[in-house]
Amino acid sequence: MSRVSPLAPHTPPATYSAYTLGRGAGPDALRLEQRQSLPLGPDEVRVRVRAVALNHRDLMFADGRVGSGGPAIVPGSDAAGEVLEVGSAVREFQPGDAVISSFFPHWLSGPANPEVTAGALGGSLDGVLAEQRVLPASAWVPAPANLTPVEAATLPCAGLTAWHALFGLDPLPPGATVALLGTGGVSIWALQLAKAAGLRVLVTSSDDTKLARVRALGADATVNYRQHPEWGSGLRDLAGEQGVARVLDVGGPDTLAQSIDAVKPGGSVAVIGRLAGAEPARIDPAELFLGGKRLIGLMVGSRAMARDLVRFVEQANIHPVIDRVFSYADAAAAYAYLAGSQHLGKVVIRLD
Amino acid sequence: MSRVSPLAPHTPPATYSAYTLGRGAGPDALRLEQRQSLPLGPDEVRVRVRAVALNHRDLMFADGRVGSGGPAIVPGSDAAGEVLEVGSAVREFQPGDAVISSFFPHWLSGPANPEVTAGALGGSLDGVLAEQRVLPASAWVPAPANLTPVEAATLPCAGLTAWHALFGLDPLPPGATVALLGTGGVSIWALQLAKAAGLRVLVTSSDDTKLARVRALGADATVNYRQHPEWGSGLRDLAGEQGVARVLDVGGPDTLAQSIDAVKPGGSVAVIGRLAGAEPARIDPAELFLGGKRLIGLMVGSRAMARDLVRFVEQANIHPVIDRVFSYADAAAAYAYLAGSQHLGKVVIRLD
Amino acid sequence: MSRVSPLAPHTPPATYSAYTLGRGAGPDALRLEQRQSLPLGPDEVRVRVRAVALNHRDLMFADGRVGSGGPAIVPGSDAAGEVLEVGSAVREFQPGDAVISSFFPHWLSGPANPEVTAGALGGSLDGVLAEQRVLPASAWVPAPANLTPVEAATLPCAGLTAWHALFGLDPLPPGATVALLGTGGVSIWALQLAKAAGLRVLVTSSDDTKLARVRALGADATVNYRQHPEWGSGLRDLAGEQGVARVLDVGGPDTLAQSIDAVKPGGSVAVIGRLAGAEPARIDPAELFLGGKRLIGLMVGSRAMARDLVRFVEQANIHPVIDRVFSYADAAAAYAYLAGSQHLGKVVIRLD
Amino acid sequence: MSRVSPLAPHTPPATYSAYTLGRGAGPDALRLEQRQSLPLGPDEVRVRVRAVALNHRDLMFADGRVGSGGPAIVPGSDAAGEVLEVGSAVREFQPGDAVISSFFPHWLSGPANPEVTAGALGGSLDGVLAEQRVLPASAWVPAPANLTPVEAATLPCAGLTAWHALFGLDPLPPGATVALLGTGGVSIWALQLAKAAGLRVLVTSSDDTKLARVRALGADATVNYRQHPEWGSGLRDLAGEQGVARVLDVGGPDTLAQSIDAVKPGGSVAVIGRLAGAEPARIDPAELFLGGKRLIGLMVGSRAMARDLVRFVEQANIHPVIDRVFSYADAAAAYAYLAGSQHLGKVVIRLD
Repeated sequence: MSRVSPLAPHTPPATYSAYTLGRGAGPDALRLEQRQSLPLGPDEVRVRVRAVALNHRDLMFADGRVGSGGPAIVPGSDAAGEVLEVGSAVREFQPGDAVISSFFPHWLSGPANPEVTAGALGGSLDGVLAEQRVLPASAWVPAPANLTPVEAATLPCAGLTAWHALFGLDPLPPGATVALLGTGGVSIWALQLAKAAGLRVLVTSSDDTKLARVRALGADATVNYRQHPEWGSGLRDLAGEQGVARVLDVGGPDTLAQSIDAVKPGGSVAVIGRLAGAEPARIDPAELFLGGKRLIGLMVGSRAMARDLVRFVEQANIHPVIDRVFSYADAAAAYAYLAGSQHLGKVVIRLD
Repeated sequence: MSRVSPLAPHTPPATYSAYTLGRGAGPDALRLEQRQSLPLGPDEVRVRVRAVALNHRDLMFADGRVGSGGPAIVPGSDAAGEVLEVGSAVREFQPGDAVISSFFPHWLSGPANPEVTAGALGGSLDGVLAEQRVLPASAWVPAPANLTPVEAATLPCAGLTAWHALFGLDPLPPGATVALLGTGGVSIWALQLAKAAGLRVLVTSSDDTKLARVRALGADATVNYRQHPEWGSGLRDLAGEQGVARVLDVGGPDTLAQSIDAVKPGGSVAVIGRLAGAEPARIDPAELFLGGKRLIGLMVGSRAMARDLVRFVEQANIHPVIDRVFSYADAAAAYAYLAGSQHLGKVVIRLD
Repeated sequence: MSRVSPLAPHTPPATYSAYTLGRGAGPDALRLEQRQSLPLGPDEVRVRVRAVALNHRDLMFADGRVGSGGPAIVPGSDAAGEVLEVGSAVREFQPGDAVISSFFPHWLSGPANPEVTAGALGGSLDGVLAEQRVLPASAWVPAPANLTPVEAATLPCAGLTAWHALFGLDPLPPGATVALLGTGGVSIWALQLAKAAGLRVLVTSSDDTKLARVRALGADATVNYRQHPEWGSGLRDLAGEQGVARVLDVGGPDTLAQSIDAVKPGGSVAVIGRLAGAEPARIDPAELFLGGKRLIGLMVGSRAMARDLVRFVEQANIHPVIDRVFSYADAAAAYAYLAGSQHLGKVVIRLD
Repeated sequence: MSRVSPLAPHTPPATYSAYTLGRGAGPDALRLEQRQSLPLGPDEVRVRVRAVALNHRDLMFADGRVGSGGPAIVPGSDAAGEVLEVGSAVREFQPGDAVISSFFPHWLSGPANPEVTAGALGGSLDGVLAEQRVLPASAWVPAPANLTPVEAATLPCAGLTAWHALFGLDPLPPGATVALLGTGGVSIWALQLAKAAGLRVLVTSSDDTKLARVRALGADATVNYRQHPEWGSGLRDLAGEQGVARVLDVGGPDTLAQSIDAVKPGGSVAVIGRLAGAEPARIDPAELFLGGKRLIGLMVGSRAMARDLVRFVEQANIHPVIDRVFSYADAAAAYAYLAGSQHLGKVVIRLD
C-alpha cells in the first residue's frame, strides 16, 4: 500500500462540495452543493477524493435505466483518493494512505447475493463525485502502489468487472483465447489484464482506427463487426482450432447470439452488460445444449476480488488506458463525452 | 454387476432382426429387416437387446429435427440387454453380464467436446432397436443389479441427462431446491434421483392429475403452469426464502425466460432440451447479470457419469417410473404413444 | 424458522449465571458466577441458552491444548436457545425465535481466512455455557424447526464440521462411499447426513457393540480397527471396486497414514481433528502423488454453511443422536463423561 | 503445428537402434541394440526421435526405486521427433509433423485414475531412448511450433508436471505467489510458466550462484535453505501479507513440513516428488486443519493438459532452460551428469 503524501494529514475541512443528480434527471441536472463534514463513526474512514472514473452505468443512472429513485444522490462509483482521517476502531488504514472505493460496499468476499449487492455507490447509495467521502473501512481498498489517482480510479467498476469475468470465477488458464466486444472501459481493461496473464485476445469494433489501437495494445487479432455482421463466425475463424474459451459480452440484446456462436463447445459467455439494443436477446437453446456452452451473469465484484486485482496490477505493473481526463468543474462535459462513445479506455474526472 | 442368466452363453444366432428408419421419414417408415451376425473385433461385445426405451429425441429424429441424413439407420439409443459374446481383448465383460448402452459411445470421461459427442446411437450411428447390437466394450456399461431390463433401458439418455444436470457438474448439495418442468422421462428421473439425494423438488405441469402423481412420488410442491402462466414467480413463491437453486429446463424457447425468472440469485438453469416452441428464446441479459444467474447447456453425459448413476441407483435402490411397455412388434405404436404426450415416466419396448 | 414460544418475550433478568474456566485449568476448575445483564448494542441479540453441547475441543481447552490463555472465560461453543431481546437495528430475529450459535462469529461466508477464524466461541472469546449470551445478530443462526434445543445444540461444531467435510467444499455426489473414524459426535453426525444424502457409509471402531449400533443407524459396513490394525486396507476391501471417495479423519497423528491408504486414487482425506497420538503423523508423499490423493484441512464452517446444514436437517428431518444429557448443575460431570470416551453421539447440557 | 521438414518423408529404415536398461540395473547397464522396424497398425504413428530429455525419475528407474521389473526395456519418457509414417486410420498427423511423446499414453483427458496411469513410457512400457518409436496416434502431441527438438523434448514430464501443478487443476490466478523448491527441471519450468502467466515466484536453493541465476530468469525473491533451515518461515517473510498460495514440493520426506509451514491459510502444497529423504514425511495434522491447508498429490498430466501447455508455450514464446546437451552415444554420461545434481534446467540427449 502506498502513501500519497508523506506529510501529516490535514485537518478535514469543515465543508466540502459534492455533485448531486436525480435518477433519470439527465446529466445536465448535475448540481454542485456544499455539505458539512460530519464526525466519523468508529469504523469509518474519511477520504479526500482525487479522481473519479465514469462508467456507462453512470449514463444509465442519469437516464433512469438503473438505480433507485427518490431524491438526488451523489453520483459516481469509482474513486481514488487519500485517507484524511480514520475512526477509533480502524486498524487497516492510516491518514495518507492511497485508497480506491469498493463498488458494492457490503460485498466483502464469497459469491454475490442480494444482501451484499443491495447497496451500490452512485446507484442506491450516495456515490463519490465529491471532494470528500466517508465510508466504513471495509468499503475502501488499498490502491495499487504503481498508479496515479487518475489511473487508480478506473479499477472499482471497469477493472474489477474485467477481472471477475476473466479470473474471479472459473479462471481462464494462460494460453486460452478470450474475445472482447468493443473498446469501452471494461474491454480495454480486460485486454490489458488478459495479455499480462498470458492469454490470447481477440477484439471486435466497428472502427478500424480503434482496432489498430487495440492491436498496438497487444490484441492478437481483431474483427470489424460492421464489415462482418456475422462476427461470431469471424471470431471462430480467428481463434482457429483451439477456439474461443470465453466472450466478455458487454452488449446484451444485440450481441448475445453472436457471442454464443463465437464461443467454442464447452466455453462460456460472461454476460456483463447491456449496451446495445432495447429488446430482449433472442437465443437458440439448442446452441447451448448441443455445444455444452454456458452463459455466466456477473456484476462487478467483491472486495476480496478487488484486492486480488490490485495485487496483479502491481505485480505486472499494468497502467490502465486513460482516454481523457476532465476537471471537476467540467463533470457534465465528461458525461457528455462518454455518451458520445468515441472513447477507447477510460474517461476520468480529476479533482485538484 | 449382475448376471442376467447363470447359464452358459448361447451361440449367437446367425441372423437377427433390426428396425431401420430414415431421418425425417416419420415413425410410420419404421421397417424390420434381417441382418447377418458378423464376427467380433477384439475389443467388441455382442449384446442381446432385451429392452429399448424411447426418448423425445427419437421423435425428433423421425421428424428430421435431429440426426444425420443419408440412408436409414437403426433408431433408438437406450438399450438394456445381456452379453452374448466378447472379443478376444475384452476383460471387463463376460457372456451373461447385464449391460446398458452408452449414449455417446466415444465419450468416456471428462468434459464434453465435439470429438467425443460426434457419434450418438440412433442419431449419427446405428442405434439399438434390434435383437442384437455389437459395439466396443467401452460403449457398454454394467447395468444396475437391482433393475429389470425394462427399467435399466431408461438410464442411457433420460436417467443420465437428469444425473448430469443435478450432480454431474456443479453438484447440488443435499437440501437444495430444484425445479422440474413437466412429467416427461427426464423430469421424472430427476425427481426420483433428487429425492433420494435429499433435495427439495418442485414440479410444473398443465395437468392436475399428473401433479398429484408427482406429489405421490415425492415432489414437495407443484404448480400448474396453465393456471399460472407466470409460473416462474409461482416457483419462487413455493421455494420461499431459500430460493430455487436450479431449474432443469427441458422446454427451451417457450420456457427459458420463466426458468430464469424462477431461479434464485446465484442459481442456474440447466438447458437440456427444446420441447416447446419453434422460435428462438427471448431472454433479458440483465436478468442474468443483475442476479448473477447462469445458463448451463448440457447433453446426456459420459460413460463415467453413467457408472456414477448406476452406483447411486443401486445404492438407493431406485426403480424408475415406467409409464407403458410395448412389444417389439408394436414399436411404431410406442412412437405414436410417446408423441401423444400423455405419459408420466418412460415408454419402453420389450424384446422377448 | 420456528418460534420456541408464541408468548410475548420476558424482560431479560437483571443478572444471570455463567460458568467460567481458565485455559489449561482442568475441568474441575469450572466455576459458576453471577453476571449483570448489560444493555444491547444496536446489532446485538440476547439469547436465553437452553442447551449446550460439548465437543472434544472443550476438553482440549480445559487441558490447555487449544485456545487463548489469559483470564478464565465462559467455555463452550455450541448453544441452542431462544431470543429474549434484539437491538434496534436487528431485522433478522425477533424475541421468541429459536436460534443456535455460530462457532466462528466473524465467518459469514466464503472460504476461511485468519481474519474470520480469529475469534471462536469458548476458545479465544467468551462461549455459551451460561444462562444468557449476547452476540451480534450475525453470530446467530435460525435453529432447525424440527429439533428440540438439546438436539439443535449439536449443530454448531460437530454437525457443521461433518457438513463442511462432506458437502461444504468439493461436495460428494450421491452414491459415493465415505469412511468415518470412530463413533464420536462428528462421525455420527456425518453418518446421519451422509445416509440422508444417498451416500454409502463405512465406519471404524474398536468396539463391536458400537459397530452394531452404527449399522443400526444406517452404516453400510464396518471394520473393527483393534482386530484389523491395517484398517486402511480393510476399508478398501469393504469399498470394493468403486473405492472410498473420502475419509473424514478425526484422529490425526495415529490415523492419517491408514486414512490415506484407505482412500481411492483421486480421493481425499478431510483432515479435521487430532484425537489420537502426540507425535507428528508419518506419511509417505509417494502415496499422495502416485495416487493423485488429497489431504484437505478444514475446521468447522461458516455461517452460510450452517444455514445450508439447517435447511437439510429440516428437509430430511434428521434428529441427531444424543448419547447423554446432563443438567446445568452437573456440567463438570458432563466434561468427565465425555473424557471417558464411552459415548456414541453427542453429550449435551440442558438448562431448564 | 509445425513441420520439421518440408521434404517428402523418408522410407522408414529397416532397422534402428535403441537403448535398453533393466529396472535397478544401474545406468552403467545401458546397452544399445538393433531392432527391426515392424509394420504399423492402423492407429499407429512412427516417429524418428530427435531428442530425449532426462528426468530424476529415469535415475530412480535405473536404481530400482520406480517402474516395473522384468526384462530390460527402452528407458526414457520424453521425446521430441518427427513423424515418419502414419497408420491407415490416422487423421491427426502426417509425415514430417513435429511431435512430442505423451508420458502416460492412455491418459487422454479428465482426472487421473489407475487405468489411465497404468502404463508410463520408460517405466512399465518401452520408452523413447531410441532412434525410432511407434505408438498410437493418441500417444503423440503436436510439438510447439517455436521450439527446437531439444527444447520440445523437455515438455512431456517436467514441463507438464509444472503446468499441472500450477494451472491444470485449481488454476492459480495471475498475481498469486508460488514457491518453488530447488532448480531442477520441474522447478525451472514452473518458474518460466509462472512468470509468463503473471504470477509472483519465490525459489529456494542451497546455492547462491543458482539463486542469482533464477533471479535473472525472473524469480521475484529467493531463499538459501542451507543458510535458513527454517526456510518455510523464510518464504512466508518474503511473501509478505498476501502469503504463498501454493508450494510445488518436489522434495517429499525432508521438505513437506517446511512447505506446509510456508503456505498461507487456505493455500495448498502440490506434492509432486520425492527427491529428498528416505523416511516418511513427518507432518502435524493441526497445521492442515487450523490453517485450512491442502496437500494435492499429482503426477505429470493428461494429453489434454499437454495440449494446453503447448498452446501456452507458443502463445508466450517460452523457451525452456537447457542445462546441457549430450550426444546419443553419451547417454550414460547424461545419466551420470543428472545424478550429480549440478544442473539448473534440463539435461537432454540429442540424436543426429
